[in-house]
Amino acid sequence: MFKKFIAFSFLMTITLAVFCQEVNVYPSNWWVGMKNPKVQLMLHGTGIGKNTISITPYTGVRLEKVHKPENANYVFLDLVISNTAKPGNLEIKVSSGNNIKFPLKARRPGKGSAYAQGVTSADLVYLAIPDRFSNGDPSNDRIPGLRDQSLNRDSIFHRHGGDLKGVLNHLDYLQDMGVTALWLLPVWENNMPDRTEHGYAITNHYRIEPRLGTNEDYAALADALHSKGMKLIQDAVYNHTGLYHFFVQDKPMKDWLHEWPAYTNTNYKDQVLFDPYAAKTDRKKMLDGWFTPMMPDLNHGNPFLANFLIQHAIWSVEEFGIDGYRIDTYMYNDLEFMNRCNKALLDEYPRLSIFGETWVHGVPNQSYFCENNLQVPFKSNLPATTDFQLLFYGIQESLTKPFGWTEGVNKLYTTTAQDFMYKDPMRQVIFLDNHDLARFYSVVGEDTAKYKVAFSWLLTFRGVPQMYYGNEILMTGFTNPDGWVRLDFKGGWPGDPENKFTGQGRSEKENAIFNHIRNLAQFRKRSSAIKSGQLTQFVPEDGVYVYFRHDNKQTVMCIMNTNPAEKQVDPARFAERTKGFKKGRDIPTGDLMDLQQKISLRPMSMLVMNLE
Amino acid sequence: MFKKFIAFSFLMTITLAVFCQEVNVYPSNWWVGMKNPKVQLMLHGTGIGKNTISITPYTGVRLEKVHKPENANYVFLDLVISNTAKPGNLEIKVSSGNNIKFPLKARRPGKGSAYAQGVTSADLVYLAIPDRFSNGDPSNDRIPGLRDQSLNRDSIFHRHGGDLKGVLNHLDYLQDMGVTALWLLPVWENNMPDRTEHGYAITNHYRIEPRLGTNEDYAALADALHSKGMKLIQDAVYNHTGLYHFFVQDKPMKDWLHEWPAYTNTNYKDQVLFDPYAAKTDRKKMLDGWFTPMMPDLNHGNPFLANFLIQHAIWSVEEFGIDGYRIDTYMYNDLEFMNRCNKALLDEYPRLSIFGETWVHGVPNQSYFCENNLQVPFKSNLPATTDFQLLFYGIQESLTKPFGWTEGVNKLYTTTAQDFMYKDPMRQVIFLDNHDLARFYSVVGEDTAKYKVAFSWLLTFRGVPQMYYGNEILMTGFTNPDGWVRLDFKGGWPGDPENKFTGQGRSEKENAIFNHIRNLAQFRKRSSAIKSGQLTQFVPEDGVYVYFRHDNKQTVMCIMNTNPAEKQVDPARFAERTKGFKKGRDIPTGDLMDLQQKISLRPMSMLVMNLE
Repeated sequence: MFKKFIAFSFLMTITLAVFCQEVNVYPSNWWVGMKNPKVQLMLHGTGIGKNTISITPYTGVRLEKVHKPENANYVFLDLVISNTAKPGNLEIKVSSGNNIKFPLKARRPGKGSAYAQGVTSADLVYLAIPDRFSNGDPSNDRIPGLRDQSLNRDSIFHRHGGDLKGVLNHLDYLQDMGVTALWLLPVWENNMPDRTEHGYAITNHYRIEPRLGTNEDYAALADALHSKGMKLIQDAVYNHTGLYHFFVQDKPMKDWLHEWPAYTNTNYKDQVLFDPYAAKTDRKKMLDGWFTPMMPDLNHGNPFLANFLIQHAIWSVEEFGIDGYRIDTYMYNDLEFMNRCNKALLDEYPRLSIFGETWVHGVPNQSYFCENNLQVPFKSNLPATTDFQLLFYGIQESLTKPFGWTEGVNKLYTTTAQDFMYKDPMRQVIFLDNHDLARFYSVVGEDTAKYKVAFSWLLTFRGVPQMYYGNEILMTGFTNPDGWVRLDFKGGWPGDPENKFTGQGRSEKENAIFNHIRNLAQFRKRSSAIKSGQLTQFVPEDGVYVYFRHDNKQTVMCIMNTNPAEKQVDPARFAERTKGFKKGRDIPTGDLMDLQQKISLRPMSMLVMNLE
Repeated sequence: MFKKFIAFSFLMTITLAVFCQEVNVYPSNWWVGMKNPKVQLMLHGTGIGKNTISITPYTGVRLEKVHKPENANYVFLDLVISNTAKPGNLEIKVSSGNNIKFPLKARRPGKGSAYAQGVTSADLVYLAIPDRFSNGDPSNDRIPGLRDQSLNRDSIFHRHGGDLKGVLNHLDYLQDMGVTALWLLPVWENNMPDRTEHGYAITNHYRIEPRLGTNEDYAALADALHSKGMKLIQDAVYNHTGLYHFFVQDKPMKDWLHEWPAYTNTNYKDQVLFDPYAAKTDRKKMLDGWFTPMMPDLNHGNPFLANFLIQHAIWSVEEFGIDGYRIDTYMYNDLEFMNRCNKALLDEYPRLSIFGETWVHGVPNQSYFCENNLQVPFKSNLPATTDFQLLFYGIQESLTKPFGWTEGVNKLYTTTAQDFMYKDPMRQVIFLDNHDLARFYSVVGEDTAKYKVAFSWLLTFRGVPQMYYGNEILMTGFTNPDGWVRLDFKGGWPGDPENKFTGQGRSEKENAIFNHIRNLAQFRKRSSAIKSGQLTQFVPEDGVYVYFRHDNKQTVMCIMNTNPAEKQVDPARFAERTKGFKKGRDIPTGDLMDLQQKISLRPMSMLVMNLE
């Protein structure tokens, strides 16, 4: 216990990177040689605003402006760091005498290749909840001083002890399965009284959640991923923080948050943002209403807050080598702010991936929030979204509803056809489930035939495929509450009676799925047609949907039979794409099919054939 | 019988406007003083192509070119008619000696005001099937010589005897109800062996279907409408004709039609036209496949055919004074041809309305086919569509499905919010049913409360409202076959035992609906807010949907309660629109509501309140 307390204090000092205990500086450091020479420091400490602030002369660094907001516990400094500046410690002079050393570091090596690489359709993303994946360091399961002292694997809402070390321990497992990119739910401190397992109630942007590990652990995880040729996606939360964030408890300015006379929730209606007829009050409620009473809505109209968030995003990339961002609750943010934030990131890191969560209904709605082919007053610069449309109105319908003119797999076909609305559909992130949704194995009634079709689709369709931890071992669960889709990965904790990370620990059925995913994921790693080729789709007929992935080197023919009955398909109909090929090798089974005759399809099955 | 035959022969001569029986000319006449000086005549007669063709000198008229296609029964003449030309008969000289007189008429008076007026959101459109609405002239019920000799009101597929005179007889009825524009199913000759009641299998573009009347009867109907301040919408069929059209039976050129080695139907998949991944073969099938075996698909790529269709459209406007066009099966046409055709019409008649039938699923799909806010390679110039989306995913869902996050009246709200995709949503034509769809009274389970809500919506929402004959007397029917939604209007035939055209002939329930429609339709005639004002909609809550129509002179507040239970609504939520008003007068009932307190809503009901 005593030992833990020491570790905690130590962390505080390092993380906040301050010279004296009383004043914290955010960001905790910066770099020389950034494209954008400007950085705005937030100094937070009792009465700091009563001091005169200056800097000790430092070559190439200029203190452009000192801002003193109405709350004397804050000061903001505008620094300009020119190309002539060298790494070192910049001294911020405080008239009370408690001067602060602010590290200006050399930039991360490998700029432009080893980090900020971007996640593309060549990748396979694995989403994990650090608290629920694996417990690599039982010593940090409960941290004294934090508000949430729960530690109870029997409760879906309490902490379970999983951590970054647990993730690090399983990178070989993930890579063997074919995963190339890791997306973790937010890893920043969530010093909240309860429901801290999801990470979306950040209370300190510059400190890794101590129950998950340290800033150094996060850096080690990023480095390990990169050394394996894998990538790291950070979950960004701009819309809100936890109620116990230091800058919520002690607001720098009156307009730091969106505050209401009485508690007002968002209406969760994305429509009001583009609806030509939207009522003003609905719009205000959508944007400025709170996500939950425990998560205050940040006012992005406050330029100091905006800078704080943007700089944290850039700081994360440079400090840890982030390759991509998933942005939480995208459309609840001020969209002009989001454009500014995305631009700042892409100006600094042009290859970085950014995709926003767009839990909306309809391609028009979703495409509005990313780069699109719409002539509308507001143009988003978000490169991509999490493609809820191909889930809700695509694969889910295909496998749970009978075929009809607008139903079943026809819905997948027609929703895909609406891709003309996106600037770059290939960047959209496709998925079967995530931490907020029913697990797909449950959605399809634990039907492994349907589940295999779903993965054959996910791993061959357009876009960046994303799977969710436990998909590969048939984890089940419906939301409501969402904790039921956030259960532990069996084998991730010392002493777990079963270990699903190994073939021996998995049942025959689980291994069949695991191998199905692994076969396709490893195939797609070598498949130029799937990684970067074109898509051609044919009008579904009789519940059978045929599409091709192709480039000038390779053609992959995918045939999805969504019927509960056997069907035949005549390859002659697809001559415009099968021309020149005689056979098709089905990847999951290895079967060789003759393209000169009709192909028999098993009930509810999918062929993924490499044409030869 | 003998008398009828005389009438028929007489018609043939007049309609085709030819000097000698053997050669027919299309168009049958033209005008001097058109904006576009060019017209291309089609001469059709046995061996006409073996002649030398010229014109007798005529001031201001030049024969630019004579085209002789491979079929010697056709010749095409390119005429240029300059501004100096005067009305008269142009003589076309045929070397065999059978010269032809081609009338060049003075333009219709009232150009720019009394015709080609356009149909706007200030109108109420009434769609009728001439064969099924009223029989004003029993003498033309069966016409000797035509292939379909059926006349049997007991069969949904046979002719019933309704005609243009029957429509003409009821203009007062329509005007009294509040109708301002009439759309008839196609009125051109359908000399087909059966199923001639709908009119979409045209066999002669220049002859009014003789069982409906004569070209003169059509002109008289148009004139009568105009004299009452009403408008006429023509149903245009560019995609196909009847199999027995003269130019199908005797093709001018090999590529006049889209022909296939074996009969090939269209796949009816609009998606292939915008899907970035569409297979070429699917696209060809959609565009070039036939609508039915009895309706050959026209090749708009043939410039002579294209001219023929475009000129017929212009000829109809100038000859009869058409105010608007409804275009059948819009997306089955060659879209570049459609753009050319629309432009030719709008160049000549800038105020003309043109709306295309877009029986598709999804606002992206529908908006693709009209003027939109999309940055896509193909840009449609079609001003508007028949808005199937607000029917299928709007009012129908609202009144037949329980309220949910994406269901019930929320679907109406969210579909409307996607209006940002249209260049001008106010031009879209909204409706509850038509000749191809289940009658809406049947769709809502013959629930008059729901049906009243539907009409309150139709007559107050954005766009051009269109009703279908018999809506006002609770006609029922499901399609499959579609004849069941094309039954006779009772009272339209001499000797009908009931006459629903009169209050006495209608039941109490029917009169209640009739008066509901009439009250609202007459109100909207005087309501600037509804006719041309803005729309503001609020997020539906608890199954209650509130929208406003407003301009700087008037505010109309519409409250739709889609619940089977009574609800209360607090006007305070809508202060941004109710500000300055104290009371609301409900139009259908005359009730006065106090805006300072909560308003009680009856189960499944709608208030349409003029704010005071």
